Amino acid sequence: MNHRYAGRTTITLSLTLSALALGLSPALAQQTPPPAPSEIVAAAPTSDWLAISPDDILIMTLAPDAAGHARRIIIQLMPAPFASAWTHNVRTLARASWWDGLAIVRSQDNYVAQWGDPDGEDAAKARPLPTGLHPTTEAEYVTAAPGLGFTAAPVRDAYAERVGYVGGFPVAGDATSLWGVHCYGAVGVGRGMSPDAGTGAELYAVNGHAPRHLDRNIAVIGRVVEGMEHLSSLPRGTGPLGFYENPAERTTISSIRLASSLPAAQQPHFQYLGTNSASFARYMDARMNRRDPFFIRPAGGADICNIAVPVRRVPAAG
Amino acid sequence: MNHRYAGRTTITLSLTLSALALGLSPALAQQTPPPAPSEIVAAAPTSDWLAISPDDILIMTLAPDAAGHARRIIIQLMPAPFASAWTHNVRTLARASWWDGLAIVRSQDNYVAQWGDPDGEDAAKARPLPTGLHPTTEAEYVTAAPGLGFTAAPVRDAYAERVGYVGGFPVAGDATSLWGVHCYGAVGVGRGMSPDAGTGAELYAVNGHAPRHLDRNIAVIGRVVEGMEHLSSLPRGTGPLGFYENPAERTTISSIRLASSLPAAQQPHFQYLGTNSASFARYMDARMNRRDPFFIRPAGGADICNIAVPVRRVPAAG
Repeated sequence: MNHRYAGRTTITLSLTLSALALGLSPALAQQTPPPAPSEIVAAAPTSDWLAISPDDILIMTLAPDAAGHARRIIIQLMPAPFASAWTHNVRTLARASWWDGLAIVRSQDNYVAQWGDPDGEDAAKARPLPTGLHPTTEAEYVTAAPGLGFTAAPVRDAYAERVGYVGGFPVAGDATSLWGVHCYGAVGVGRGMSPDAGTGAELYAVNGHAPRHLDRNIAVIGRVVEGMEHLSSLPRGTGPLGFYENPAERTTISSIRLASSLPAAQQPHFQYLGTNSASFARYMDARMNRRDPFFIRPAGGADICNIAVPVRRVPAAG
Repeated sequence: MNHRYAGRTTITLSLTLSALALGLSPALAQQTPPPAPSEIVAAAPTSDWLAISPDDILIMTLAPDAAGHARRIIIQLMPAPFASAWTHNVRTLARASWWDGLAIVRSQDNYVAQWGDPDGEDAAKARPLPTGLHPTTEAEYVTAAPGLGFTAAPVRDAYAERVGYVGGFPVAGDATSLWGVHCYGAVGVGRGMSPDAGTGAELYAVNGHAPRHLDRNIAVIGRVVEGMEHLSSLPRGTGPLGFYENPAERTTISSIRLASSLPAAQQPHFQYLGTNSASFARYMDARMNRRDPFFIRPAGGADICNIAVPVRRVPAAG
């Protein structure tokens, strides 16, 4: 394999420097090079992993690509009480098979890929929404902090007083409230001008550097935990804001389903690394201070969006 | 146009709140809604724009895409004294047409697209490097700060004591030195294990959230200022680290040229918004506090990578 790259490897030429950064003796370090974040995650005990409810898993299937390959995207929905009016609506829309046959309508470089009803603005042609949707309000862009089980990340943040994790999700906050953050892969709710807060029928996923200025201006409802490459590698739209100008450029959505709506044998199962676990603390430290052999200078900090909560696919419980 | 989106528009329903945030009277604000960052840039006077030297512009042309469309990427090289050994080498390689017929070998989601010699690791098959390359060292990942003309960005940063701009580029620093930062679109030099610092023959561009942990661990030599979508939308490689497993998946590089090597009539011309200008100060403030009508809550801060230095293409001087 080509060794000239930006990244990490298992070769250990810079071992001594890394070992010194850890305070290990060089002799000990020769035997135990500092682990990479991925190695810490791989070594985490089963007890540090928490199941994601099948009610919190959306399975988005796009039409096969030009080579005929399947394209499946897994989205984890944010746990209540975050964005619960929108996640209720998203579940309702998925159970109604509402998105089936609709499309990805927008792909703007270093911003978002967005999907929904291409005819949504045309009352005569728009697909009717299902019954049972909840009203949504701007007030719900933030959530009262007490009782949420916040795990702080010991990092500086350019946008908020504090950042950390709740229920497997990165969040930002002030003294009294918390809110979802627009990291790479975050899924949010398209909306019109204020005070419209969107129904949840039009969604987007962040495909570039975290557009954190959208935090508290729009609802974050989940994040892509598998298959993001199917959204990020779509051709960019050439219209304003990256909308596709020609309907033929859109990618058709075959279906969006809740995992809990599938027959038990077909349900995928996922876990996230509990953010209160010792493994997560080690992982966070390793993301902030890369000491694995490729690195010569640990940063001493990290952006919250560069400390993504690890998620893994697991076999069904026997 | 579909109005339900994540982004901005010219509709002004939330005008009053935005106007209050600016300290304008609602009556005045009715006439002058707060400008979006793009509007500030569009209104900047000619005197605020600075020419980019044709010696600092790389033109990378990929093989046409499947539909036969041209793919051209413009890279601005970092000004001396930053990374000058590598930028010397990159100019030398471009003048030697060294990359012509080589390929993009790696596309890792939310990390980098990388190009160079697919046979670079095989001494029997590797393309020989041209003469005249300079040696490179890790010490040059940082540059002594005095005399560089640093413009501070008034933001918190998770990775460095200070961040700002030099010569149209985002930089980070401490009390004595400055270094290039890995924002979206940043171009860096692939390398082996320390103390190898790379020649510049293998390059990458960041295609996701800024991997700032690479700062000071690898050389940043430039940034993509046009055509980034041709790199970011490439199919992801399925091998380790996003390398393409099958040579047929690679994208061929038709050529990489310095603008200054082209006949005068074929040279493209670019300018960047001077970071000491009044327009840039307004633009930076508007990026930190979005008051254009879509936004209901200005952030009061921004990540340095969300305040990209504007670049524009201009006609040749008559």
